[in-house]
Amino acid sequence: MSATDERSDRLAIDDLRNAWVVLSTEERVLGFGLLSSDQAEEFFLSLPGTDAAELLAALPAQDRRRWMRLLAPDDAADLIQGASEEMRGQLLDLLDESTRREVSALLAYAEDRAGGLMNPRYARLRPDMNVDEAIAYLRRQTREHLETIYYAYVVDPDQRLLGVVSFRELFSSPPGIRVRDAMRTDVVTVDEQMDQEAVSRVFAEHNLIAIPVVDSARRIKGIVTVDDIVDVVEEEATEDIQKMGGTQALGAPYLSLGLVEMVKKRIGWLAVLFIGEMFTATAMAYFEDEIARAVVLALFVPLIISSGGNSGSQASTLVIRAMALDEVRLRDWWRVTRRELMTGLLLGLVLGTIGFLRVVVWQAVRPVYGVHYLAIAFTVFWSLMGVITFGTLTGSLLPFVLRRFRIDPASASAPFVATLVDVTGLVIYFTVATLLLRGKLL
Amino acid sequence: MSATDERSDRLAIDDLRNAWVVLSTEERVLGFGLLSSDQAEEFFLSLPGTDAAELLAALPAQDRRRWMRLLAPDDAADLIQGASEEMRGQLLDLLDESTRREVSALLAYAEDRAGGLMNPRYARLRPDMNVDEAIAYLRRQTREHLETIYYAYVVDPDQRLLGVVSFRELFSSPPGIRVRDAMRTDVVTVDEQMDQEAVSRVFAEHNLIAIPVVDSARRIKGIVTVDDIVDVVEEEATEDIQKMGGTQALGAPYLSLGLVEMVKKRIGWLAVLFIGEMFTATAMAYFEDEIARAVVLALFVPLIISSGGNSGSQASTLVIRAMALDEVRLRDWWRVTRRELMTGLLLGLVLGTIGFLRVVVWQAVRPVYGVHYLAIAFTVFWSLMGVITFGTLTGSLLPFVLRRFRIDPASASAPFVATLVDVTGLVIYFTVATLLLRGKLL
Repeated sequence: MSATDERSDRLAIDDLRNAWVVLSTEERVLGFGLLSSDQAEEFFLSLPGTDAAELLAALPAQDRRRWMRLLAPDDAADLIQGASEEMRGQLLDLLDESTRREVSALLAYAEDRAGGLMNPRYARLRPDMNVDEAIAYLRRQTREHLETIYYAYVVDPDQRLLGVVSFRELFSSPPGIRVRDAMRTDVVTVDEQMDQEAVSRVFAEHNLIAIPVVDSARRIKGIVTVDDIVDVVEEEATEDIQKMGGTQALGAPYLSLGLVEMVKKRIGWLAVLFIGEMFTATAMAYFEDEIARAVVLALFVPLIISSGGNSGSQASTLVIRAMALDEVRLRDWWRVTRRELMTGLLLGLVLGTIGFLRVVVWQAVRPVYGVHYLAIAFTVFWSLMGVITFGTLTGSLLPFVLRRFRIDPASASAPFVATLVDVTGLVIYFTVATLLLRGKLL
Repeated sequence: MSATDERSDRLAIDDLRNAWVVLSTEERVLGFGLLSSDQAEEFFLSLPGTDAAELLAALPAQDRRRWMRLLAPDDAADLIQGASEEMRGQLLDLLDESTRREVSALLAYAEDRAGGLMNPRYARLRPDMNVDEAIAYLRRQTREHLETIYYAYVVDPDQRLLGVVSFRELFSSPPGIRVRDAMRTDVVTVDEQMDQEAVSRVFAEHNLIAIPVVDSARRIKGIVTVDDIVDVVEEEATEDIQKMGGTQALGAPYLSLGLVEMVKKRIGWLAVLFIGEMFTATAMAYFEDEIARAVVLALFVPLIISSGGNSGSQASTLVIRAMALDEVRLRDWWRVTRRELMTGLLLGLVLGTIGFLRVVVWQAVRPVYGVHYLAIAFTVFWSLMGVITFGTLTGSLLPFVLRRFRIDPASASAPFVATLVDVTGLVIYFTVATLLLRGKLL
């Protein structure tokens, strides 16, 4: 293949990839059909499970077997999980006997567990082989389509994990030495039921290419490889970000979602927040007389409550992400509270001062606030101190409260925190105003 | 090593890892000293560059060489980048001659480029070797501490990349066949200057374990492995999340940041937003007469402007994440605008209806809104329609505008969008009120 051919091949496959998300199913089949056999294989293998399932469903029935058999068991399981109920049995039947058994076993795991991520094909060795025998044995095993031979796992006859030896170690060991003496026994493992987010944390901590999945009796069930973890990390971050923005996790690319689905994912939280925010109207009604007497008070309402919301969003975002990265645990709540109290006071001091100056300077330029402008300026200052400190504390503690009740901390979205803080912010503001302006404006 | 020993070892190392972020440097050195030699190596290798540099700086000078020589060149470069200016030269001098040269070359790349991520040691083959020779040659190369032998790269005498053969393919090929005939030539590569986020996208698209880094003449400079990409994906998501929450990216774990640094990272955006939000006071002052005549108008201000902020936050969050995942490009702006216009209208319709009912039902229970309650209800309805549609459009378009001007779209944070929408929301609300309530309340 010449360099130019290569270039144009790469172009065709990349073009299809770029356009994929906006193509109809028919257009996808058409585009897929235009690829050369090699390209089509590469492209098919790189598709996410649901997309591959959809494509397969649209291909002629007689072509499906070829594509199904191309897949490693974990990818086949992903594809089948992405297919419609009625297709699943059919697709499973396209696999050969032994793969079918492996895939069925994988389908028993929830998709977001270690067992649902793993590949059941891994390189295995016996402890009493010598290095040369082990290399020859691995060479035979690779013909059975192992996904990775980066690590070989040493198991006893019951498949219980005894140790691990990396291929590199095996390769650089003297040929006659026993596997038992070349292997390491302190193997990092994950349980088959471990949540995928926790699995990704184990990978991040240990810098490994693959980690074996074991059951409660330490029998090895398969391996999770780090390339699947990249997808997990990205998926989990996307979910968190979407929740933190005040939507349900979309669970699909933005452009691929229909209008009605899109509205459904968004209206729920918006409606809840809207109903919560209605209490601001109630709170304001409670202070209606004060507003009637001093309309100037109403002018600062948006400024003051939004400052509480903004500082609260900051705090909750930082704490949620720190929790997701395991930098902050439930037991750190008190440490975080103290920090955020101090942070809130300092932020309040700075913004309160700016707010104070805003009133005083404005008054000097155009005297709109009357003789009591200093009292108004102090009302703004102390309200900001109170609202920002309260917002920061609420924003940082809410993720802890949610986690304590086993709700995803990421639900403490910026809009949620802002709504919580708005109502309290109004109460703080009007209380401060009542105290400082009594006998003056009120 | 017995099972119990293993357990307690694992415990010691995990305990240290858990406590790490809150330990002082002295405590870290102490804890590190308590680990067995094997554990200490495992632990040291899993530390992020800056932490490893800090630990090393605190260890006695004569111990440093041992730890530096444990590192692969890319990890050594990370550590040196994390060290203080004055330590860098010293640390570099601890390496052996050839590693020092490799590390110096890596240090010339920016940390967030492909060149800054790569390992310069990769498995290489010549096209005319046969498979058996190739395996024997790789076996020799592994003694030189290659990081991965998952793929072997076939190069010409000028180190220009000709093809790639996976170890598995090599292992399952007939021994006599030439490497030239076993290799694939359509190799996915990345340029040495490619941004790390783009590199992570290439990994996500192709499901590869390692990708070679080439210069403009297609000479191979090193390989990036997928385990480094997990860190990149996580780092980039953290940065985006923090920006989206309205802070500067912290660049360090939450608990490790001092109070002053923490306030510094947060006050900047808060102050900008606060100053922006001051326009709400100006806008409200413009409608002061209307408020004085109909105080009831003030009551709905927080409800209405926060609805715009919330719907805007949703939209910007979804678009920013879709951009980061490459699901949405700059050229999609019109498609997104049309979608979000429809979405905004539908969301506005639902929330507007709830708002309308709130006024009407409240009035039925406790007639607080007077004879013009229906006009007030319609004011609330139409304002919500307008504010939510405007908020949704602004939130979705702002990331495009930022990207167009080469600013990170993640800066279109929830608080930023809310602030933008607040001022306009007030104008929309009071304009609608003036139109619908003229001759009634106004």
